[in-house]
Amino acid sequence: MIDLYTASTFNGQRVSIMLEETGLDYSVHDINLVKGEQRHPDFLRLNPSGRIPVIVDHDASDKPFVLTQSVAILHYLAEKTGKLLPDSLIARARVYEWMNFHAIDIGSVLFSAFYLEKRVTPPQPEAAEILRKRIHELYQHFDQQLAHQDFLAGSSYSIADVTTFPALFGQEQELKDYQHLNRWLQQLNNRPAVKRGMRVPNLG
Amino acid sequence: MIDLYTASTFNGQRVSIMLEETGLDYSVHDINLVKGEQRHPDFLRLNPSGRIPVIVDHDASDKPFVLTQSVAILHYLAEKTGKLLPDSLIARARVYEWMNFHAIDIGSVLFSAFYLEKRVTPPQPEAAEILRKRIHELYQHFDQQLAHQDFLAGSSYSIADVTTFPALFGQEQELKDYQHLNRWLQQLNNRPAVKRGMRVPNLG
Repeated sequence: MIDLYTASTFNGQRVSIMLEETGLDYSVHDINLVKGEQRHPDFLRLNPSGRIPVIVDHDASDKPFVLTQSVAILHYLAEKTGKLLPDSLIARARVYEWMNFHAIDIGSVLFSAFYLEKRVTPPQPEAAEILRKRIHELYQHFDQQLAHQDFLAGSSYSIADVTTFPALFGQEQELKDYQHLNRWLQQLNNRPAVKRGMRVPNLG
Repeated sequence: MIDLYTASTFNGQRVSIMLEETGLDYSVHDINLVKGEQRHPDFLRLNPSGRIPVIVDHDASDKPFVLTQSVAILHYLAEKTGKLLPDSLIARARVYEWMNFHAIDIGSVLFSAFYLEKRVTPPQPEAAEILRKRIHELYQHFDQQLAHQDFLAGSSYSIADVTTFPALFGQEQELKDYQHLNRWLQQLNNRPAVKRGMRVPNLG
């Protein structure tokens, strides 16, 4: 059994999709970021830096294993179950490359833009827009990659796809010039596990 | 033999340190970012997104294997050589956690701050300072982690340390309140492979 502490952000959705894909048994704990529940002492004991997602795996060793960082959690669950990560050294490296391309060069920058626009006084909308414009250009590389193969890291669905999907889904209009990226978004969205994972933590 | 295309940035230094640590044979190709060599057609054929570092591993398979993204390259080299990555599932996950904590939540934000301050018109120094102030607070978690163990992910030196070191080295004054982080910086800087790696691509 795994406890998942999460919220409706793309970092959280990465992990709930992965848990659905692996078929592992898990319980959802909804952390209300607007109410500041990520700064509650109980939560800070799990993750002192006060951020979701966090998992607690009760079947990992003789004591509960607490893990933070969405990409690290995806990777751990892939290795634990043998799913969504290829066997060959070279194919795995290609997964790491596209997973990091999104998480480091796009996902993190999207968060910085959100932070500058919504979380600081005075807000910095011009800087936020500059960051968003810069990363928008990077989607052409994702589109090119998907022009000649089904998934980001090759012919197999992987944690690179799971890392990337939640931050892009729902932006079909903004990404309309990238036809291969849009085909891939629809393809992933047709997966039942992806649909279920995207609805966590508000499954009710 | 591995070809390394790099420049004197923390992304590049991660990889040169790792190559030195593994003892793999490699050739350095200095990409002058100020002259815009990262946008030269020859370089764009290696990495269409125009960024360093890139490796070309001539011993990976029957054709040269081109890999981008510093963290992905570290991971690939660790798996290729069996170095700086623990065997157990749980210990590896801890490495991924701290590697991503730095690369996604700090390294990428440092780059966004640099970009907003130095690469856009008009410059956005206020937004850059806000981002830098935010991540500075995250170093307390690295300091706490290093208070009771030698390295970021536990008792063993790993690619989590190599990912983090180059972005922090040289900032001892700014980080002076974090005594455990400073101890760790000195400890890593005493490693001959780290010293050599930090001098690439300007070894002359």
